[in-house]
Amino acid sequence: MGRVVVDVMPKPEILDPQGKAVAGALPRLGFDGFVSVRQGKRFELEVEGDVTPEVLAAAQRAAETVLSNPVIEDVVRVAAIEADAIAGTIVDGTHA
Amino acid sequence: MGRVVVDVMPKPEILDPQGKAVAGALPRLGFDGFVSVRQGKRFELEVEGDVTPEVLAAAQRAAETVLSNPVIEDVVRVAAIEADAIAGTIVDGTHA
Repeated sequence: MGRVVVDVMPKPEILDPQGKAVAGALPRLGFDGFVSVRQGKRFELEVEGDVTPEVLAAAQRAAETVLSNPVIEDVVRVAAIEADAIAGTIVDGTHA
Repeated sequence: MGRVVVDVMPKPEILDPQGKAVAGALPRLGFDGFVSVRQGKRFELEVEGDVTPEVLAAAQRAAETVLSNPVIEDVVRVAAIEADAIAGTIVDGTHA
């Protein structure tokens, strides 16, 4: 079983009230130093078999037509992920 | 300006009606081969200056206390991202 992750974010010029609410809550709860927050969506698509380039291309098309609204959102990532990468918390400064 | 991405997903044992709705819609719209879909959240936190280990640690704490509900959600990723990584669509089979 392979897995594809699709990340969708509101376009920069679109107001993001959820992100604004989080950005306002963080300093009240003692988290300083975050100047802005944007909230988007992350989808994990499970596929039968391996994640081939064809599967990634289909996921890209699905991301642009079903998983996001291209008027207000950008698809920022379509990528295969390891099953292991989902299980736990990952703190990592290198991967995009 | 650095940026930290936080990914939050519903725990595997939690019903995810949004993901189920997407999984049902995909084959109707011609996207076969995806056996299940989970929908979570992606946050992009902008910080002043660079993303230091201290900033990542604060983001991890914020992720666990503000950005996710630990009863029903897992924080699956807390990571620094390049500003460039946000601008466009990325199709990539290697990064988690």
